[in-house]
Amino acid sequence: MLKYSAPLDQVFHALSDPSRRGMVERLGRGPASVSELAAPLDMSLPAVVQHLQVLEASGLVRTEKVGRTRTCHLVPDALDGAGQWIAQRRTNVERRLDRLGEYLAETDQVTRVEESP
Amino acid sequence: MLKYSAPLDQVFHALSDPSRRGMVERLGRGPASVSELAAPLDMSLPAVVQHLQVLEASGLVRTEKVGRTRTCHLVPDALDGAGQWIAQRRTNVERRLDRLGEYLAETDQVTRVEESP
Repeated sequence: MLKYSAPLDQVFHALSDPSRRGMVERLGRGPASVSELAAPLDMSLPAVVQHLQVLEASGLVRTEKVGRTRTCHLVPDALDGAGQWIAQRRTNVERRLDRLGEYLAETDQVTRVEESP
Repeated sequence: MLKYSAPLDQVFHALSDPSRRGMVERLGRGPASVSELAAPLDMSLPAVVQHLQVLEASGLVRTEKVGRTRTCHLVPDALDGAGQWIAQRRTNVERRLDRLGEYLAETDQVTRVEESP
């Protein structure tokens, strides 16, 4: 299955702002109108719309207008690329530490063998 | 165990640039000097140092100067907060979809019972 993965630059940029992360958290609990999204935030509606545009550009959120109400939805798969990138870094570091551990264990054994009478 | 988790704003901002992500990937394979980090990048050394400062401010990378060489290390735990934040969003969305699925299954059963002769 081909999954949509949003460009990492835009996704990480979108997530670098606490208000935008708050909007993503809110949309994780279900779709919301723009004014519902704005309600807990201490900012003007135009500022909220601007944040929303950054989220839309990143692919994390899509909006649709029905009548006079614009409804916002989270696009959960759009976080996959960012999550996988971070997970991959951890895996690589752990592999490197494993190799280092094996090397130290081997060196330790060699030292013990050399030291044994 | 109390783990160091870098502030999400700075970590996500640091990761929003492909050159900085490239530097993090490189450091995942082991420590490197500033010039080793700069080698694959098509940019001036001052530009590399500027990116490095963003990475240091985010807590993802630490550097130490020994003699004339500055060595850069990845701080793997500093990615934990960002990884957990993304994972949590997925978990919440999946829970919501599960509840929706259960609701639809129940509704379907009710409809079947009502339809049965």
